[in-house]
Amino acid sequence: MALPRDYTTLTCALSRSLEIIGERWTLLIVRDAFYGVRRFGDFASHLNIPRAVLTDRLTALVEADVLERTTPPGTRREVYGLTSKGLSLWPAVRALSAWGDEHYAPPAGPRRIFRHAQDDAPLTPDGHCTHCKEPVPVRDILITPGPGLSANPTNPTTDEDPVSRALRTPHRLLTPLPPPKGQHP
Amino acid sequence: MALPRDYTTLTCALSRSLEIIGERWTLLIVRDAFYGVRRFGDFASHLNIPRAVLTDRLTALVEADVLERTTPPGTRREVYGLTSKGLSLWPAVRALSAWGDEHYAPPAGPRRIFRHAQDDAPLTPDGHCTHCKEPVPVRDILITPGPGLSANPTNPTTDEDPVSRALRTPHRLLTPLPPPKGQHP
Repeated sequence: MALPRDYTTLTCALSRSLEIIGERWTLLIVRDAFYGVRRFGDFASHLNIPRAVLTDRLTALVEADVLERTTPPGTRREVYGLTSKGLSLWPAVRALSAWGDEHYAPPAGPRRIFRHAQDDAPLTPDGHCTHCKEPVPVRDILITPGPGLSANPTNPTTDEDPVSRALRTPHRLLTPLPPPKGQHP
Repeated sequence: MALPRDYTTLTCALSRSLEIIGERWTLLIVRDAFYGVRRFGDFASHLNIPRAVLTDRLTALVEADVLERTTPPGTRREVYGLTSKGLSLWPAVRALSAWGDEHYAPPAGPRRIFRHAQDDAPLTPDGHCTHCKEPVPVRDILITPGPGLSANPTNPTTDEDPVSRALRTPHRLLTPLPPPKGQHP
């Protein structure tokens, strides 16, 4: 939705944040980048987002310095990764995910559980390790399947996109996901 | 923007959260409710949001059990307040505000600073008191003017709406803002 011009006079911190990431797809794209999604096609199939919308949102995130677009040496494909400004969105993504888990998890429990890679203990909603009590840096967080994952009838394994398939096993945040089978990097 | 039907098959916690609050106005309305805004007209003038859009967003938030609509005894006006589900959005609102302060504050500094009511010390971005180190419950947080507030040329005091005016002095979160002058409660 286009916002009225007056909106830009709302100069508070939250308003300015929402100008960048206050749109559903945008925050899901950022979330996927934390999961290790880097390729256009992987964002598109995992989020089931129209390609024109995805192009538009990725461009805006690059312009806002939340994502950067690079072509890794030895490859021909562009990939997207979080900048340091993008990485500092992690507390917001974590807080919204925790709120969703609290109020909208499937009856069996959350679909994904964040754990501390060092000791495998789950994190508290505010990002501390339940075992060693330390705040866990984003690079030391594992995303692991939760009890609600296989209980989800709308997303059977046979139908899954490559990102959902990769996330069926524990995966460290920010580690690039493997390329789909048969596709060169 | 209407999302495609497929969006509803994204059953992760963040997607479900964003179905409720993943829209710019919606999260600003929730933020204002934390500030103590309760009346329709105060939301409308503070956010400069078209009244039809505000009606629509408030209805959705009441249906999602984030806000509740009540008529306080002895008054004739409906007011909105956060439910316990709404209150649990505080870490997400705080995290997004902190990200905005980090990257989009005016040159002079943040426009608003959260402080611990008990000892007046500012909070860390993750909501702990910088003096006593304790996590601060939302009801013990003061919102106070920051150095960037009066430096903001687009929002001169003479032009201000009642909410902006009330927030020029320290105000405890969740405490209802006073009614505009000359208006009975």
